[in-house]
Amino acid sequence: MEHTIAAISTSTMSSGGISIVRMSGKDAIETADKIFVSKNGKKLSEASSHTVHYGNIVDEDGNIIDEVLVIVMRAPNTYTREDVVEIDCHGGILVTRKVLEAAIKAGAKPAEPGEFTKRAFLNGRIDLSQAEAVIDVINSKNEYALKSSVSQLDGKLSAKIKEIREVILNHVAYIEAALDDPEHISLDNYVNNIEKDVDNCVDNVYKLLKTSDNGRIMRDGIRTVILGKTNAGKSSLLNALAKEERAIVTDIEGTTRDVLEEQVNLGGVTLNLVDTAGIRKTDDYVESIGVEKAKKYAQDADLVIFVVDSSRPLDKNDDDIISLIQNKNVIVLLNKSDMEQVVKPEDLKNLNKFSMVSISAKNETGLDKLEHAIKDMFFNGEISFNEEIYITNVRHKTLLQEALDSLHMVKDGINQGMSEDFLTIDLMTAYEKLGMIIGEEVEDDLADRIFSKFCMGK
Amino acid sequence: MEHTIAAISTSTMSSGGISIVRMSGKDAIETADKIFVSKNGKKLSEASSHTVHYGNIVDEDGNIIDEVLVIVMRAPNTYTREDVVEIDCHGGILVTRKVLEAAIKAGAKPAEPGEFTKRAFLNGRIDLSQAEAVIDVINSKNEYALKSSVSQLDGKLSAKIKEIREVILNHVAYIEAALDDPEHISLDNYVNNIEKDVDNCVDNVYKLLKTSDNGRIMRDGIRTVILGKTNAGKSSLLNALAKEERAIVTDIEGTTRDVLEEQVNLGGVTLNLVDTAGIRKTDDYVESIGVEKAKKYAQDADLVIFVVDSSRPLDKNDDDIISLIQNKNVIVLLNKSDMEQVVKPEDLKNLNKFSMVSISAKNETGLDKLEHAIKDMFFNGEISFNEEIYITNVRHKTLLQEALDSLHMVKDGINQGMSEDFLTIDLMTAYEKLGMIIGEEVEDDLADRIFSKFCMGK
Repeated sequence: MEHTIAAISTSTMSSGGISIVRMSGKDAIETADKIFVSKNGKKLSEASSHTVHYGNIVDEDGNIIDEVLVIVMRAPNTYTREDVVEIDCHGGILVTRKVLEAAIKAGAKPAEPGEFTKRAFLNGRIDLSQAEAVIDVINSKNEYALKSSVSQLDGKLSAKIKEIREVILNHVAYIEAALDDPEHISLDNYVNNIEKDVDNCVDNVYKLLKTSDNGRIMRDGIRTVILGKTNAGKSSLLNALAKEERAIVTDIEGTTRDVLEEQVNLGGVTLNLVDTAGIRKTDDYVESIGVEKAKKYAQDADLVIFVVDSSRPLDKNDDDIISLIQNKNVIVLLNKSDMEQVVKPEDLKNLNKFSMVSISAKNETGLDKLEHAIKDMFFNGEISFNEEIYITNVRHKTLLQEALDSLHMVKDGINQGMSEDFLTIDLMTAYEKLGMIIGEEVEDDLADRIFSKFCMGK
Repeated sequence: MEHTIAAISTSTMSSGGISIVRMSGKDAIETADKIFVSKNGKKLSEASSHTVHYGNIVDEDGNIIDEVLVIVMRAPNTYTREDVVEIDCHGGILVTRKVLEAAIKAGAKPAEPGEFTKRAFLNGRIDLSQAEAVIDVINSKNEYALKSSVSQLDGKLSAKIKEIREVILNHVAYIEAALDDPEHISLDNYVNNIEKDVDNCVDNVYKLLKTSDNGRIMRDGIRTVILGKTNAGKSSLLNALAKEERAIVTDIEGTTRDVLEEQVNLGGVTLNLVDTAGIRKTDDYVESIGVEKAKKYAQDADLVIFVVDSSRPLDKNDDDIISLIQNKNVIVLLNKSDMEQVVKPEDLKNLNKFSMVSISAKNETGLDKLEHAIKDMFFNGEISFNEEIYITNVRHKTLLQEALDSLHMVKDGINQGMSEDFLTIDLMTAYEKLGMIIGEEVEDDLADRIFSKFCMGK
């Protein structure tokens, strides 16, 4: 952490109007002064914090590399809490690289991916859950994911975690004080206080945990399988949905090769549509291999959209699908609402527990109703971010579950009449697990692993 | 030009650590204040110029869209000479778009491609040749192109053009003054003054024009064809060159489909290697269609690299190639220097006028000598940018040629004893053509055309 780091902080994949080379560290300003010649002749080292300077970046022979704006920000009110210099260059790939090279020749070291944010964390400006939110903000593919990540970045999750931890720590501290000084501090009936607060903590942790499925769905999208017999209109639905604003696809991982995944954005919700094209290829399409595939997809899916051709009577194929999806989250789409309706309500008695939406994929009508049905199912209508916290990170979910387990063990201990000093063991475990969410009890290698997922320059 | 414009100024193709939304116009700061809530509660409208502010971008309901740094720069010391606000957001595609949307909802209009630079030009901060240099800097694919564009951006070309124009204008002004006031201002022998200075101007314009071939090569690369018989080592050479740092390929236009073009960077020089694979496919490879193709490529090429297999005697195929390339810029590569040398110097008497370089493409030795030979041929060794100006822009080349033609007509007029007021017509034409380079005599639609080639946000 002694050395000054430098990296290109804007996208390096393609050129733009402006790009940024960023430096952080105690020598950042001095290093910038070696390669920057301001138009007014002033040195950056003489500049006030949070000021902008116009001039040229030059090589060691004084030749101009680029005309730039340089921003000087002095510790501690910076992203990393170190001195930070941002160089706004012309956004060409080569010119930006040349400016970075100049910074490195002048003494800066190339930054690791995520190293700026890591320094922000290690220097205490943000905690670990906020640091993780940074990359989630960048990778957000829909509005809800973005809002949730911004709320986490703003410290909403951290505040909640800290609140729960404080309750736990107070009890541990009281018990330890009482054990040290039994003459003045009494533990009589104290277990009742603990029980009440642990119940409260369990409630709070459980509430957070309950959001994690929706949180994952919000961030990564809803794994959606469209089922329906041939000519029910699956392809038209796919096309109609894909015509909606496409989700931003920058870094989808794990799209396996034999499954075509279409990612669409329906009213701010990302749907990861699995194209079950394979099923259609068999003659008896929901049988043999096809039915196995469909079963597998339906099993893994968050949502099954069952497309019924309402212009033709239900048949054996529909029945097969209906029996397949009984225990899933299903939305029934009565497609071809533009044609004469042959399917009657009584034909669909096995589907009564599911929401039904009448659409015409061909005319692209009814998609708004599908959107509402999805939001009703996953987010109780509209998602509100005023107070609510969503757990979108698997690491957080696991730690919350572990903290919950420890809290339950505290309750078990109380029920079994364990001594207070025994209860503190599980209380401390819960406290530590929660602490790991915000990075207060985190090992170095975990931090390394988290920040290595960042993009360069952040 | 009344309204305030906004655009994403960093690359929008992929996400990065930071992205920039930029606004320019008289309401830029006021517009930013509508969507920005600073952490210290201060309004941007109260901020000094060239200062940086930390806070959040919020939507109309006050919900946080992103945590940002905002840079306030007040007219006239800005890129556009208008008030400019730069918002540094987290570099995600969606979050950046949301910040731009907020700016537009708050009253900014989406900028046209190049509109910021166009305003810089129209407001007189830079001239047209400098504005053109901006996009050349961004698109630079090699170091020399970058240096040349930066020098043009710095105003070196403009200064030279202005110097020539001033000489011309002085004569026109004197002649017109003399015609107005013949009693006090004499034109006796004045034509000698004109002739001397026009000779000088012709020299200067001609020198600039002479650089335009190298300028084009510098910017776009050297069109290079590799010729040689089968197994001479063409493919090995291609591979060895391609292993060198690849040129940055972001926006190569016009690579036709039937010609494979490999772009490589050899010591800072971009080579556009044409893969004459088609030639190799015919049995008698430099005959029939093959020879026609080779002829065509060789004819269009800036450089022919003739690969001779020095481990085998020259044959009919080599002779065919030798006769084909007599009038071209050729570098002869004696390949397979790692094997016993069979080709003797006297065998190559028809190639004596060309540089010869001994290499081993297989062992990748001798490529540095090839690099030097290319630089000797095109740039007299190393390219120096201390004083030299390179014309890299076809528009400039055309205008210089037209100015030169007019200056020659002035000389013809002098030789034919034309009257001074007649000479002023061609002098003024030369003056105007030169003026169009720096945008002083430029029509609106030309400016529109030039700036429409820019990327968004610049």
